[in-house]
Amino acid sequence: MSILVVGSVAFDDVTSPSGSVKGILGGAATYFALAASYFTEVRVVAVVGDDFGAEQENVLKKRRVDTRGIERAQGKTFRWGGSYTDNLNEAKTSFTDLNVFQSFQPRIPQEYAGTEFLFLANIQPTLQADVRRKMSGVRLTGCDTMNYWIQRTRQELGDTLKLVDLLLINDAETKMLAGETNLPRAAHKVLAMGPQALVIKHGEYGATIFFREGAFGIGHHPFRAPALPIEEVKDPTGAGDSFAGGFMGYVASQKELSREVLKRALFYGGVMGSFAVERFGTERLQSLTREEIDARFQVFRELTHLE
Amino acid sequence: MSILVVGSVAFDDVTSPSGSVKGILGGAATYFALAASYFTEVRVVAVVGDDFGAEQENVLKKRRVDTRGIERAQGKTFRWGGSYTDNLNEAKTSFTDLNVFQSFQPRIPQEYAGTEFLFLANIQPTLQADVRRKMSGVRLTGCDTMNYWIQRTRQELGDTLKLVDLLLINDAETKMLAGETNLPRAAHKVLAMGPQALVIKHGEYGATIFFREGAFGIGHHPFRAPALPIEEVKDPTGAGDSFAGGFMGYVASQKELSREVLKRALFYGGVMGSFAVERFGTERLQSLTREEIDARFQVFRELTHLE
Repeated sequence: MSILVVGSVAFDDVTSPSGSVKGILGGAATYFALAASYFTEVRVVAVVGDDFGAEQENVLKKRRVDTRGIERAQGKTFRWGGSYTDNLNEAKTSFTDLNVFQSFQPRIPQEYAGTEFLFLANIQPTLQADVRRKMSGVRLTGCDTMNYWIQRTRQELGDTLKLVDLLLINDAETKMLAGETNLPRAAHKVLAMGPQALVIKHGEYGATIFFREGAFGIGHHPFRAPALPIEEVKDPTGAGDSFAGGFMGYVASQKELSREVLKRALFYGGVMGSFAVERFGTERLQSLTREEIDARFQVFRELTHLE
Repeated sequence: MSILVVGSVAFDDVTSPSGSVKGILGGAATYFALAASYFTEVRVVAVVGDDFGAEQENVLKKRRVDTRGIERAQGKTFRWGGSYTDNLNEAKTSFTDLNVFQSFQPRIPQEYAGTEFLFLANIQPTLQADVRRKMSGVRLTGCDTMNYWIQRTRQELGDTLKLVDLLLINDAETKMLAGETNLPRAAHKVLAMGPQALVIKHGEYGATIFFREGAFGIGHHPFRAPALPIEEVKDPTGAGDSFAGGFMGYVASQKELSREVLKRALFYGGVMGSFAVERFGTERLQSLTREEIDARFQVFRELTHLE
């Protein structure tokens, strides 16, 4: 089944211990779309400027991503610059030029009507809610956010959370959103805000999914998928969005929406995040095969599998 | 088979968000011995002062721990005070009174000769090496250390690492010891210093074991066991030592020394660490049953187990 992602397309400058690159294709929607494209049909709603050309669009088109929802506005595409030092888990932002992204008003092309799965990448919560309301017949909506929105638009974010099924955020965001430093207690507080399940991304330690009682099956135990310890982390940018793309893409490729599917999706999320960081930008996500993905899925599975 | 632990016995003052306690029984050897006692016969070599009475010794004896190696010296027992605020992963030490522990010279009672498994808890590396050399016929030696020894006695620690089979330390210690911030690369550097396997404890995220090529079987993949997300963490003191006790205790209870045994041991380590933190001090470790332990082992296993 198809999935629609609404979010940013950007040009990034990145410096890490492995080197420096300038003006490479990035943005949450880009990473998400490429990662999800190995599992299902992907559609994108985003805005770019007149510096976004055929070269960039072809990166998505080569992965058969539907780009009809990428609006071209006058001006420059969103640009972000950041660097990673020894702690590869945290980017130090050097600049954020929102450019055309500043006045982004997501428009859903008619051709996208009937899309079954929706992912609201990290944008202003009211825009996320508007998109969700415009889409009828969606089976499952996933959502991301960040500390900026948690601190400044808590009310609006709360409204959005009532409309989504899955929230995918990291440890610090979960604790900030809940106002609670114990992670499982924070998770339960976030679930009480609306979503049926909460996926907490732990970076190099993997991810945990917490379920609302009765959601997607019975039981109340969380589930955790590890991340593979990676020796060569070149560029952590987009790891979380690639995780979300692998997770949601796998879910959208399955017939049923069960806990077992969501558990496997948690592993696929980790797999796609681990590929993303091996090269700068989206390079690694452009040229994978499903065989490579499934081989790494097996490695991840065996990493914690007892006979 | 039996296991000998050499390390500290102490009285602790602990403050956490759940409350405050003073002068409770603690110390690495105490936590280790209690945790290991659910799996195998445990012997202790430590030193205490004249403030250590029958009440404290009975905590160990009730778990059938052999206390003949606990030497009584004139003076006071090692005392430590620390507090935990919101970040329960890190203790803020308020005082460390080494007392009789300052001049600790481990003496191995004759009755302990022939002990098959040895755990060198966190003490001065030269003392660890001395103990290892005194013990003949040991099948497997595990070892702990800390940033203090890594920074001040690097040479001596290096000599000790050549004599041990397993090193159990945390992420920060691994990176400091290796002088390398990428965890898997740091792990390989530490393995090159001597041990056959390295267990890295990740706190609430579980633990990973890295093997030297060919050690305990074939293959080069690491293995990771998760920790259960715990809602009620009362006192994190001793979690790492309890992990080590569960890990080494389970290994000592098994006939063979295979990777499969070490993998299961990694889960048992996490199980014992998770019990330890549920109450202040050693309270929870004093009154467990093997049934409770195995039930939690199953929960941990299911936490990451895909059908």
